[in-house]
Amino acid sequence: MDNNRMTKISIIGAGAWGTSLAQIYATSNHNVTLWTREASLCDQLNKTRVNETYLPNFKLDNKIHITNSLTETFDRSDIILNVIPAQFVRPITEQFKSHIKPHHHLIVCAKGIEISSGHLLTDVVKSILPDSSVGILTGPTFAHDLMAGKPSAATLAHSHETVLNHLSQSLTSKQFRLYTTHDIVGAQVGGAVKNVIAIACGIVDGLQLGESARAALVTRGLAEMARLAVALGGERDTLMGQCGVGDLMLTCSSIQSRNYSFGLRIGKGETAHDILKDRKAVTEGVTTAKALKTLSQTL
Amino acid sequence: MDNNRMTKISIIGAGAWGTSLAQIYATSNHNVTLWTREASLCDQLNKTRVNETYLPNFKLDNKIHITNSLTETFDRSDIILNVIPAQFVRPITEQFKSHIKPHHHLIVCAKGIEISSGHLLTDVVKSILPDSSVGILTGPTFAHDLMAGKPSAATLAHSHETVLNHLSQSLTSKQFRLYTTHDIVGAQVGGAVKNVIAIACGIVDGLQLGESARAALVTRGLAEMARLAVALGGERDTLMGQCGVGDLMLTCSSIQSRNYSFGLRIGKGETAHDILKDRKAVTEGVTTAKALKTLSQTL
Repeated sequence: MDNNRMTKISIIGAGAWGTSLAQIYATSNHNVTLWTREASLCDQLNKTRVNETYLPNFKLDNKIHITNSLTETFDRSDIILNVIPAQFVRPITEQFKSHIKPHHHLIVCAKGIEISSGHLLTDVVKSILPDSSVGILTGPTFAHDLMAGKPSAATLAHSHETVLNHLSQSLTSKQFRLYTTHDIVGAQVGGAVKNVIAIACGIVDGLQLGESARAALVTRGLAEMARLAVALGGERDTLMGQCGVGDLMLTCSSIQSRNYSFGLRIGKGETAHDILKDRKAVTEGVTTAKALKTLSQTL
Repeated sequence: MDNNRMTKISIIGAGAWGTSLAQIYATSNHNVTLWTREASLCDQLNKTRVNETYLPNFKLDNKIHITNSLTETFDRSDIILNVIPAQFVRPITEQFKSHIKPHHHLIVCAKGIEISSGHLLTDVVKSILPDSSVGILTGPTFAHDLMAGKPSAATLAHSHETVLNHLSQSLTSKQFRLYTTHDIVGAQVGGAVKNVIAIACGIVDGLQLGESARAALVTRGLAEMARLAVALGGERDTLMGQCGVGDLMLTCSSIQSRNYSFGLRIGKGETAHDILKDRKAVTEGVTTAKALKTLSQTL
């Protein structure tokens, strides 16, 4: 259901996912600020109202306030959606640390594990902002679908039940349904590991091993994902939701997924280096695979 | 791993799935008999060694013994794979009842629920053969993939652990990996309900609601599937395996699935009647949807 109360939401990062989140919350009549680091992109977005790089066919809602000022971004918000690639979560959080106030809720929307430490992203944020409210938004959602007004769903995770309910009421809408869990570990493991499994699925398809083999691989991948979540203190059941099964379902069979299409090209014989050098957008699964290897060796 | 001990396996039903099971077990050096009801099809298969209707591009292994004699079929086997459409399980079981010996293991490979009674297929078989060993083989496997020698996996379920281990050793091969469970209820609920969810997914795609919506629907479908399994005495966890998640993954995104393609045409505006009248093969999800409605009202 659409929420009538206007919420002040700021979005850190104007990639495809950040831009589409800005769009759905603006069209749900929330007060939305979209932050981008680059002044030139900020100017271009303000001028054209089109994110030419990631979502060239969509006009941004006029109500979205676009800025590259962190002061403005944090002053204008109660909820901050942190939508930047996983490996940038630490430096960007360091950068905005001084702007955080006690009423702010930080929601990490990146999917991945910090490669240098093997840590989950909420742990990275907590190491910089130990007293802040930190949650997770993750699920099977293509930015294009959100921009086109199509329905989708995701998992919202926060360890404090009251905060979780408050955030869920603010962030769910008719178009974008959120399922809640207190298991921030499980929710993050799902979002991170599925990118690696998506690469494996692409490889299976690149090698033409068949759809049956791909389905079997996804299922065993889910089992490994659940074991990792439990080993890290999360719950197996969380992976049955949008953040696990849902995201696997979406990512592992669609050429729209950067990770799947990366694997597809690997399976057809290209090298990782050659594929990555042509790409503007980050292929999270590549770094997550390395981070997972490090992490699994510590368990 | 391939099993060196030759097992005597008979397959009841020469549709796509039955034929492909005959093929993989014959190529794994088991002693395979394939039974078909129609004398004309039996003759044609013996003459051409090609299943023109369902698998026109594949030559059957010469070692497969093809017959329409039930006496021969049961005399030649220890394990019987019952690979006929769900609604025929009762009449065919009645038909072969007198041939069953104590050493026979019956494995139901159909996916569905009996529409007249709302019963699971193992319960249908047990009502006719209360003292027989009855198991389930179900999972994400397209017949074409098996015929082409591509790798795949499935769930093998039997309530008796010793029998389950014996069957698993006999029926698993390098190409076809079986994961075992004692939960015959959960395994059947997965295989039956996924066909209905596949129709819903086809409808979503026919209406162009997007891949995100389809992934969300599959995830919620899995949650409903798990609740139904638990209500019938099965286990939630079983649905995390090949018989649940795996089969959903395969069926819900592939035009090769009869159920998905049925839904796709519904979503584009055709009527169920018009779609079904052109089809030779059974679209299990259509009858299962009705059976599930009846079943859910009794719980």
